[in-house]
Amino acid sequence: HIDNTIPLESRQIWKKFSLGEFGDKQEFQQEFVRHVETSLARSLYNCDDLAAYQAASQAVRDRLVVAWNRTQQKHTLTDTKRVYYLSLEFLMGRALDNAMLNTRTKQYAREGVKDFGFRLEDLIEQEPDAALGNGGLGRLAACFVDSLASENYPGWGYGLRYEYGIFKQKIIDGYQVEQPDYWLTYGSSWEIPRNEISVDIMFYGYVRHYTDDEGVHRRCWEGGDVVRAVASDFPVPGYGTANVNNLRLWSSKPAQEFDFAKFNAGDYINSVSEQQRAETISAVLYPNDNFDSGKELRLKQQYLWVAASLNDIVRRFKKSKRPWREFPEQIAIQLNDTHPTLAIVELQRIFVDLEQLPWKEAWDLVVETFGYTNHTVLPEALEKWPVPMLENLLPRHLEIIYDINLYFLQEVEAKFPNDRELLSRVSIIEESQPQQARMAYLAIIGSHKVNGVAELHSDLIKKTIFKDFVAVYGGDKFINVTNGITPRRWLHQANPELSDLIASKIGSGFVKDLSELRHLEKFADDEDFQRQWMLVKHKRKEKLAALVKSQSGVVLNPDHLFDIQVKRIHEYKRQQLNILGVIHRYVELKQMSPEERRKMTPRVSLFGGKSAPGYYMAKTIIKLINDVGKVVNNDPDMFDSLKVVFVEDYNVSKAEIIIPASDISEHISTAGTEASGTSNMKFVLNGGLIIGTVDGANVEITREIGEDNIYLFGHLADEVEDIRHKHKYGGVQVGKKLQQVFDFIQSGALGDPEIYTSLLHSIKYGGDYYLVSDDFDAYLEAQHTINHDFKDTKEWARKSIVSVSRMGFFSSDRAIRDYAEGIWNVEPSPVEE
Amino acid sequence: HIDNTIPLESRQIWKKFSLGEFGDKQEFQQEFVRHVETSLARSLYNCDDLAAYQAASQAVRDRLVVAWNRTQQKHTLTDTKRVYYLSLEFLMGRALDNAMLNTRTKQYAREGVKDFGFRLEDLIEQEPDAALGNGGLGRLAACFVDSLASENYPGWGYGLRYEYGIFKQKIIDGYQVEQPDYWLTYGSSWEIPRNEISVDIMFYGYVRHYTDDEGVHRRCWEGGDVVRAVASDFPVPGYGTANVNNLRLWSSKPAQEFDFAKFNAGDYINSVSEQQRAETISAVLYPNDNFDSGKELRLKQQYLWVAASLNDIVRRFKKSKRPWREFPEQIAIQLNDTHPTLAIVELQRIFVDLEQLPWKEAWDLVVETFGYTNHTVLPEALEKWPVPMLENLLPRHLEIIYDINLYFLQEVEAKFPNDRELLSRVSIIEESQPQQARMAYLAIIGSHKVNGVAELHSDLIKKTIFKDFVAVYGGDKFINVTNGITPRRWLHQANPELSDLIASKIGSGFVKDLSELRHLEKFADDEDFQRQWMLVKHKRKEKLAALVKSQSGVVLNPDHLFDIQVKRIHEYKRQQLNILGVIHRYVELKQMSPEERRKMTPRVSLFGGKSAPGYYMAKTIIKLINDVGKVVNNDPDMFDSLKVVFVEDYNVSKAEIIIPASDISEHISTAGTEASGTSNMKFVLNGGLIIGTVDGANVEITREIGEDNIYLFGHLADEVEDIRHKHKYGGVQVGKKLQQVFDFIQSGALGDPEIYTSLLHSIKYGGDYYLVSDDFDAYLEAQHTINHDFKDTKEWARKSIVSVSRMGFFSSDRAIRDYAEGIWNVEPSPVEE
Repeated sequence: HIDNTIPLESRQIWKKFSLGEFGDKQEFQQEFVRHVETSLARSLYNCDDLAAYQAASQAVRDRLVVAWNRTQQKHTLTDTKRVYYLSLEFLMGRALDNAMLNTRTKQYAREGVKDFGFRLEDLIEQEPDAALGNGGLGRLAACFVDSLASENYPGWGYGLRYEYGIFKQKIIDGYQVEQPDYWLTYGSSWEIPRNEISVDIMFYGYVRHYTDDEGVHRRCWEGGDVVRAVASDFPVPGYGTANVNNLRLWSSKPAQEFDFAKFNAGDYINSVSEQQRAETISAVLYPNDNFDSGKELRLKQQYLWVAASLNDIVRRFKKSKRPWREFPEQIAIQLNDTHPTLAIVELQRIFVDLEQLPWKEAWDLVVETFGYTNHTVLPEALEKWPVPMLENLLPRHLEIIYDINLYFLQEVEAKFPNDRELLSRVSIIEESQPQQARMAYLAIIGSHKVNGVAELHSDLIKKTIFKDFVAVYGGDKFINVTNGITPRRWLHQANPELSDLIASKIGSGFVKDLSELRHLEKFADDEDFQRQWMLVKHKRKEKLAALVKSQSGVVLNPDHLFDIQVKRIHEYKRQQLNILGVIHRYVELKQMSPEERRKMTPRVSLFGGKSAPGYYMAKTIIKLINDVGKVVNNDPDMFDSLKVVFVEDYNVSKAEIIIPASDISEHISTAGTEASGTSNMKFVLNGGLIIGTVDGANVEITREIGEDNIYLFGHLADEVEDIRHKHKYGGVQVGKKLQQVFDFIQSGALGDPEIYTSLLHSIKYGGDYYLVSDDFDAYLEAQHTINHDFKDTKEWARKSIVSVSRMGFFSSDRAIRDYAEGIWNVEPSPVEE
Repeated sequence: HIDNTIPLESRQIWKKFSLGEFGDKQEFQQEFVRHVETSLARSLYNCDDLAAYQAASQAVRDRLVVAWNRTQQKHTLTDTKRVYYLSLEFLMGRALDNAMLNTRTKQYAREGVKDFGFRLEDLIEQEPDAALGNGGLGRLAACFVDSLASENYPGWGYGLRYEYGIFKQKIIDGYQVEQPDYWLTYGSSWEIPRNEISVDIMFYGYVRHYTDDEGVHRRCWEGGDVVRAVASDFPVPGYGTANVNNLRLWSSKPAQEFDFAKFNAGDYINSVSEQQRAETISAVLYPNDNFDSGKELRLKQQYLWVAASLNDIVRRFKKSKRPWREFPEQIAIQLNDTHPTLAIVELQRIFVDLEQLPWKEAWDLVVETFGYTNHTVLPEALEKWPVPMLENLLPRHLEIIYDINLYFLQEVEAKFPNDRELLSRVSIIEESQPQQARMAYLAIIGSHKVNGVAELHSDLIKKTIFKDFVAVYGGDKFINVTNGITPRRWLHQANPELSDLIASKIGSGFVKDLSELRHLEKFADDEDFQRQWMLVKHKRKEKLAALVKSQSGVVLNPDHLFDIQVKRIHEYKRQQLNILGVIHRYVELKQMSPEERRKMTPRVSLFGGKSAPGYYMAKTIIKLINDVGKVVNNDPDMFDSLKVVFVEDYNVSKAEIIIPASDISEHISTAGTEASGTSNMKFVLNGGLIIGTVDGANVEITREIGEDNIYLFGHLADEVEDIRHKHKYGGVQVGKKLQQVFDFIQSGALGDPEIYTSLLHSIKYGGDYYLVSDDFDAYLEAQHTINHDFKDTKEWARKSIVSVSRMGFFSSDRAIRDYAEGIWNVEPSPVEE
């Protein structure tokens, strides 16, 4: 009988919780059963792990939603200043574990589901990642909304609800193949659909000029196609607070307003289908990191998102009945990169065209409202939009951009008379064919503060890409806010073993106030603690080894040095430097006798990351890594010496397994190219040491943890320009060791060498833009030191503990407080529990 | 303070029901508050009517879902025979009121929401119609699933979850304009998303031939595009039973399986968008009634739907581990019209290609499983698919159709040797250019029973379109099941005033067993009861008048005779006969003195219905009706004599207001063209008398209620062919009265007469296919009698009461029992409360 398949005890508890028989049951179980039976329309008899995950999530979510409501009501009642964080990407990962930890209900849930025969960890694994981002930029936004909530700031995120997040990466025959990530296959338990909150968004159309009743000449944008943006809310719980903030993501839907003219006889079905294609606007996340493809659909995404968000923000402000001049006292909007720059134009349009404020008054409010975060120094990654495309899609916005530009250039002219070169350099409109609108310039002009994301980076942008603007505005407009990471997800959740060990010494306050980690330093020399410390690391390496085995069949030895580089695949991040180094090591090891090899530090080189689908060179690097792995892992000589693994489909959930398992991680971008990096922070916080260039946040990590605890190498940022110049006019000198590696590849030992020709040529004959040849020997040298140091386990453990104890600065809570004080001028507003 | 905007009492109750403070509260209120606060993430402070509707629905829905689960579990455990009703349309209308009435919780909900300041009727009005059907066929399916549940049959409906139901009709300048009906704007509270239940559906591809291990030659369909069908369930509660059945609707979604080849560099976004277009397959209901447009998208809809449904059905059967020969003992599948005919081919394909049963064995099971309901005698409405389209989209299915046809024709040849004419006539493949597959023939050949939907119709199809098949199979294969309507929605819910009045005399058993109405007849002469009866009618006419006033501004007098024709606009339904008659009356009235006019029965002519978007003639009829209304309603002479109203966007919800308000309704199709009609039943059940032709179910209504209680007129079905012949070869004789009407129209009195030229010419010079000229005088005569009879209120009331008392036969419960006994061989299987 079917009853017999379920343990009696489960059945008894279940029966007690079935609807219609309420009693004094454990609340989680009661809610769990309720959701299984009603929300999921299932029963004990067909409740699988997926359904159990969904029911558990909805039980937890219900609590969040109630707190969410209380938080929003409080903020409405106290009419406090709010921060809006506009980011085209929010790489949130999974929500259940995080929500349980932040609301401190995990133990309850664990015991609750256990009675029904479930392991909580299995349920957590059912959740698909909300992978609505490419990499660092999107994950930063996710850390920031966590910290905004945890630090009790009234702060919302605004983004797009892509139906397809970053593609799933399959490795087929060593190549990356992209597969769409339809993450909503089973719906999202964390989504609150807000179908009643919608904004009609216009595209195309024309600008009508008219004179209003008071004789003022006005403009009005009209006659375009209308698409509806509909809101979905994702509650963002703070840690150790009743505060639950909001992440509002917009979807495009067909508008109700309809072009009747299209409805000719018989054309009905086509007209509806065409209408329905409105939904494709928000369907897909563009899978490019640090790169802009200039596609109209992308521009539509950006405008739909900022227009809907601003409409929402302005509507909320208007409910307060305050005068417009108080707008920046009530509202701060942060632009995460240039993607939302149109918000500046849209707000000016709302003020001038719709609310009929005078231009100057409106513009001052706009500038006071916005802050802009720059994320790159790579000139090629600065977003530009063709003027003809803007003119067609957003005719009124282009006019406003022209006016903003005109007034700005007049200011510049007044300050630096007759410097036409300067005017041409700082103009928003680039005089190319076709003309391009430089969005970063617009963002600078329309914001009261511009920040870089690490000290080096903030310095560099003032000296390079934004130099002219420093001259115009002075240096104070340009500040630094070093990135941070949330210690909740990246230590407490990802590495409970380490979190518990730390808490056993210094209490758990560090989860909320990461600077408390400093108290750990006094245990750095404690040998017993060192042993426990390394035991945790070993456990986590075992866990990663299990993942790798299940995915690729490759068996890793957790005693070996785990050297990890996981991040987007990009030439500037220099995975090619890493894999060429691995090949060098392989060649070296092959030349040794077995005895010699046994003396060498055995290593695992682990890679992970996605390449933009159209980025040929990055895809070649992936192919090379996999081909090296195939040869090395099947070479019996290497069995106890070297393994090379590429982890397929790197994402947040995998990061949570990979990061705690590193001995060494690589952050080896060409100096001056990586704005900050945040995975470097995550690795060190989890007790891994790092090998890196003097770039991005590596600089501040070094300053905090001490240069003895980090393996730096390579040329410095201020040398790069000269070296590139030398490469260009004097050719590239490929050193002996690198040439050996090239020779090995070209011998065909890894497969058809033709496959890698363009990669090798870009170094040897293509000017080696990323300085692989220049840094190769230093890189090997640093690795050599690491091999040596790793053998001294105690000293290694000491470095690791000391490093962790000095990482307090890199909490995103600190970063958010920096923003709040330096840019937003906003106060915490905690909700009483 | 914001608290002051809400009454203290509401706040107190609300607070008591807030989560975290459970106590011994009234259950509905508790559930209501819970859903507002969690499912909707709102609070008392922003709970509007829409949110309150949603919360109330979800509270009621939760109960349905639990009962749904219990019902399905019981059917699984008892492994009883199930019926599957395949219908491309389910015109369900609104669900909340129906669900509350069927579960008898309405009073509870009414009082529950009242304490929070809501009127339950206002909440009910918030629900958008689930208008997933064109007209009678879809509404029949909706009545049938209600009766299946109420009669405790294990019966599911299978259909498509269109995102756009039948278009919303706007009347602009007298013309119909179609607007898409995006009924899911606010989601559906009644939907249980079953994202985990999905079936991959293939299109295109090719047929591979191979020989299996046992040397048998086999075929396999492969290599096509894959789209995923995902299930949504809508619980269908029975009345006065714990039985809750299921309506499963499929949506098309992108399949996970992906054509990697399409992922060239840079093509990612386009590939995903293309993939996403899979969703358009199920997006739109085709807005054609009795008409097939032969569009590939429509064929895709049909195949996706039947393939997903059969996969679901077969999967469920296989879980029982029974041998295949028991398939028809466990499963009955009813085909509602020819739209699901591919199910026959698909099941044969599953049996032969996938389960590898021998052809003959498989085919016997198929035939024994299916029943086919025919809905039309109009030859032009019989569905055909071009063979080249089938060959391209469903190559294997076309092969199977060829084989089915071959074996069938061999049978025919054996029975009627050498009758090549016969073979050609009954062949599934019509030898036209291009060849066409005749789906009705396939449905007959693949089913064990074929039924018409009213006695006259069932007779007619045996004599006309299916005559040859009667010769081949004998008459027993062809049976009649007269349509019915559910007394729950069409009396108890739509007309609670009348339902209560009836119950006051005979108890409320008639809601479950409509034949109990017979006990009402003894009160037919009771003058007091007659008065009460007419008072209810008057109230309902007031309600309709209020709707008309709010929509069009036209003021109706409830004392006037309300003459109503609401149904799809189609020449065969002859709204043109009605409106031409109205014009005749107008011309007549205009010629009278005010005194003479005052003696005439004052009338309201009310029309409603949609035309297929591409059906020019039907749209002209709508325009004519509206133009007549414009003239008549603005003519002061007519103020107390005549009003003409076209109710915009006729749908189920409006039908619930319109039908109880009729004195007379019109069912005046050309004899032999309307298969049954069911609105005739609804009108009579609500105490309206009818004017009608001897067509469809009018015949049986007459038999049941007596010919004194119905106003029949016009030529009979068996005369129609001769008359058409006469028209064709002898011309059409337009009588004097009709010619006067034509003259009036052509005088320009209604506006530019050019607009109506084609309509008038189709009668006068186009052969008058629908016999308007032949029936016009008889129609006027019948109306004349009605005008006379209406003045005798007592006699009118008596006729009305007698008619209602004799309507028991027309319950869809009876129809479903007929199907169960005559076709499905299935027993009720009630669930204990």
